[in-house]
Amino acid sequence: MADARFFTRSGPFTLEQIAGEIGATLQAGDPGKTVVDVAPLEAATADEVSFFENPRYKDALAATKAGAVIIAPSAVDLAPEGMPLLVTNAPYPGYASAALMFYPHVSADAAGAISPAAHVDPTAKIAAGVAIGAGAVIDANVEIGEGSSVGANSVIGRGVMIGRNCAIAANVTLSHTLMGDRVIIHPGARIGQDGFGFAMGPNGHQKIPQLGRVVIQDDVDIGSNTTIDRGAGPDTVIGEGSKIDNQVQLAHNVNVGRGCVIVSQVGISGSAKLGNFVVAGGQVGIAGHLEIGDGAMLAARTGVPSDLEGGQQYGGTPARPMSQWRRELAAVAILAKRKKKKKA
Amino acid sequence: MADARFFTRSGPFTLEQIAGEIGATLQAGDPGKTVVDVAPLEAATADEVSFFENPRYKDALAATKAGAVIIAPSAVDLAPEGMPLLVTNAPYPGYASAALMFYPHVSADAAGAISPAAHVDPTAKIAAGVAIGAGAVIDANVEIGEGSSVGANSVIGRGVMIGRNCAIAANVTLSHTLMGDRVIIHPGARIGQDGFGFAMGPNGHQKIPQLGRVVIQDDVDIGSNTTIDRGAGPDTVIGEGSKIDNQVQLAHNVNVGRGCVIVSQVGISGSAKLGNFVVAGGQVGIAGHLEIGDGAMLAARTGVPSDLEGGQQYGGTPARPMSQWRRELAAVAILAKRKKKKKA
Amino acid sequence: MADARFFTRSGPFTLEQIAGEIGATLQAGDPGKTVVDVAPLEAATADEVSFFENPRYKDALAATKAGAVIIAPSAVDLAPEGMPLLVTNAPYPGYASAALMFYPHVSADAAGAISPAAHVDPTAKIAAGVAIGAGAVIDANVEIGEGSSVGANSVIGRGVMIGRNCAIAANVTLSHTLMGDRVIIHPGARIGQDGFGFAMGPNGHQKIPQLGRVVIQDDVDIGSNTTIDRGAGPDTVIGEGSKIDNQVQLAHNVNVGRGCVIVSQVGISGSAKLGNFVVAGGQVGIAGHLEIGDGAMLAARTGVPSDLEGGQQYGGTPARPMSQWRRELAAVAILAKRKKKKKA
Repeated sequence: MADARFFTRSGPFTLEQIAGEIGATLQAGDPGKTVVDVAPLEAATADEVSFFENPRYKDALAATKAGAVIIAPSAVDLAPEGMPLLVTNAPYPGYASAALMFYPHVSADAAGAISPAAHVDPTAKIAAGVAIGAGAVIDANVEIGEGSSVGANSVIGRGVMIGRNCAIAANVTLSHTLMGDRVIIHPGARIGQDGFGFAMGPNGHQKIPQLGRVVIQDDVDIGSNTTIDRGAGPDTVIGEGSKIDNQVQLAHNVNVGRGCVIVSQVGISGSAKLGNFVVAGGQVGIAGHLEIGDGAMLAARTGVPSDLEGGQQYGGTPARPMSQWRRELAAVAILAKRKKKKKA
Repeated sequence: MADARFFTRSGPFTLEQIAGEIGATLQAGDPGKTVVDVAPLEAATADEVSFFENPRYKDALAATKAGAVIIAPSAVDLAPEGMPLLVTNAPYPGYASAALMFYPHVSADAAGAISPAAHVDPTAKIAAGVAIGAGAVIDANVEIGEGSSVGANSVIGRGVMIGRNCAIAANVTLSHTLMGDRVIIHPGARIGQDGFGFAMGPNGHQKIPQLGRVVIQDDVDIGSNTTIDRGAGPDTVIGEGSKIDNQVQLAHNVNVGRGCVIVSQVGISGSAKLGNFVVAGGQVGIAGHLEIGDGAMLAARTGVPSDLEGGQQYGGTPARPMSQWRRELAAVAILAKRKKKKKA
Repeated sequence: MADARFFTRSGPFTLEQIAGEIGATLQAGDPGKTVVDVAPLEAATADEVSFFENPRYKDALAATKAGAVIIAPSAVDLAPEGMPLLVTNAPYPGYASAALMFYPHVSADAAGAISPAAHVDPTAKIAAGVAIGAGAVIDANVEIGEGSSVGANSVIGRGVMIGRNCAIAANVTLSHTLMGDRVIIHPGARIGQDGFGFAMGPNGHQKIPQLGRVVIQDDVDIGSNTTIDRGAGPDTVIGEGSKIDNQVQLAHNVNVGRGCVIVSQVGISGSAKLGNFVVAGGQVGIAGHLEIGDGAMLAARTGVPSDLEGGQQYGGTPARPMSQWRRELAAVAILAKRKKKKKA
């Protein structure tokens, strides 16, 4: 069970409620039976729900004392006789949904309150059920939709639009941004500041005004201390459902497609365009003004200097198809070994 | 036109005013004619000013409906007959200056006000026309020059000196810092904290007090969530006109020359010294206690372990002259291909 | 002498007091003689104390005008005749301790005060002698031990426990964290937010609730704008005496041993486990779910995809033993040169 100092648990829920929420079929169990928490197979007690996906854990499944198990149809026979099963084709996402029932991201006790120590401009339009922390600054003409929250000491610049059920954490800075629904922004993210645009010259570098915005579509996650500059003229855009980790840098005019996963410390230069469901591992670097096709997967630390076709895996700097990069690494290792032998 | 939710446009301005501001000569136009905005060649209307620099866009120039075009003397013949021209040898910087007339960085409505919700120590010396946002903390003996602004929830530590017309954004932390004029600090930058100095030992690491400062000269830009540690004894120094992007790390005693351009996620280790007009691409890493000569250009992700001569381009880890690095990459690719053939 | 705008100097101290504090033996000097500051050998005056460790500076030692020198027993003969010596086997750590006497990290004038502009929840337990800056937010059930301080505009989430004599700087965000004694957190660090955990799928990525904590043991340092996510179920743990620089990223469930040194911009992926006294140079990347043995040293920018044995040096991406990596670099350089010759 999660530490009660930090986590407020909801529930209990009946197996029927859980089946409904996660889209599973209840098999061999009492629909009205209640469970109070989620837990791994080996730790779960009779009033907790667990899940099975990885075949490595089939012994743990056979021995589990859980009150119910979320499981795929193909694995049902591996479960103990008479165990209540929540059967679904996607047990891990199902578990995630069940866990979210017990531990919703925004704790219930924060919702609905605007701290008297928040600084909210009278022209801001704040919907019902919005929570705003102490010291947060909400500037002129900001709009915040129903059920959203803004953490303590965050600063929301004038005109910013935040949709419904968004969670903006503490110490965040937002400006020049339009945001959809269910967006999560982690602490210390900086979004909408003017990008790094200069007319460079031998006598100095002349700042170019940055006149675009940041558009963040529904269900996007943005990590801690990540920075996203607004567009120079066009907008910087983060597509629906994309998940961005901590300390990522997105320069002006970057366009990230839908469902992308961008791991921490990735840097994407100005005007680069990522397709849908692109995955970029940690510390990847992507040069400006290039396109990466749908579903491309970049190994951690890949350096991308030019366009990449979708649907493939890449690694190395400059980026090559994974298989080529591996062959090159092997060839160099052999070459160095041969030289060493000669010397000996 | 930029989104009016976020941008307050100044103007209109006459062609004569613009010519004066950007150092251009007006040719074939009415000096008293007014324009209201900047726009690209293909979008500009008769009351907007545009610019031409890249020959790729000469058809757009020929067809433009702009009210005036900023252009080099050598390109004047490419412009439509009778088009008012603002002729200058530097059209792109000229455009930047014109755009800044319409969209100055600090919005006029912010200037001059100190929020009643700011916490300003009575010993701080705040010049006329300084703006300080809600929740900002200005500690003892801070000095802030005329026309500067400090964003909401920023914290300016005791004794910090900020020159004139500086723009410190929201959620910034400054300490132990002396700053010139027209410096721009983006949200979340951390400047002046004590550096990473330890007497390392097998039984633990003993902190070394960091007794220097950060000196930031005129016209420097510092990006979002960038970190600059103060010196250990000598100062950390950023030279005049240098531009530093987001998430850059400068360790204690780093010395950056004049007019350098340091792109995002670069890390520079302690006591490294960069000459003037050095360019470091994204994610470059520079080891400590080394020197990089004037005008050196480091490709993105270059790793620099030792001194580099100025005036050249470098790439790879460890850094090599660009041409050598490219030859090595090609040689390895050929080697790996040959091995694959042999296997087949 | 450090700039009095920024540094409050303590002292003076007698040589006897210094000898006692740093564990040195006073030789050839008056124990009651007082000194007022620390300084390098060549700059020190008769009322300042200096140190000697690097043989390169033996001429400076011979010529120094310092009031006393911290020095190893083996170097005593190199000192000027009659010079008061503070003899210890560890002169540099000894110097660090002496400097800390004159310049303690937390300035005396900050200690003990809770700003009336701080927002402290009535259920928080704040010990005696705690300083809290203006705009800082201390949430419900937080506990802060004796002698600790929290900087302006920092946000300490509910239930967080902070030990004794910790220094939390300005603009920090802490949640879901248990912290020992003498921990230093630099400005803008983000600790305890939920990690990057998703059940990825072709139709979208389902958030996994992160139900663990961050545990920070005694004497840990955490740099500016560093991000440390809380565990997914197990905890994220930073071992005693480990020092973490600026802009480091530690993902959920990372386990850092004791006495580790992690230089800036390092990224460590989820569930990676570092032994004790591991050193990771700047911009190192470490993949998830792997182990690095005690005392391993990773050169700057090393990329680690799999387990590494302790007690060795590694470099390159993917990480190889240093000697192998150097041989490979040399072999490639020779190969490329040969090809160039053939072409010529």
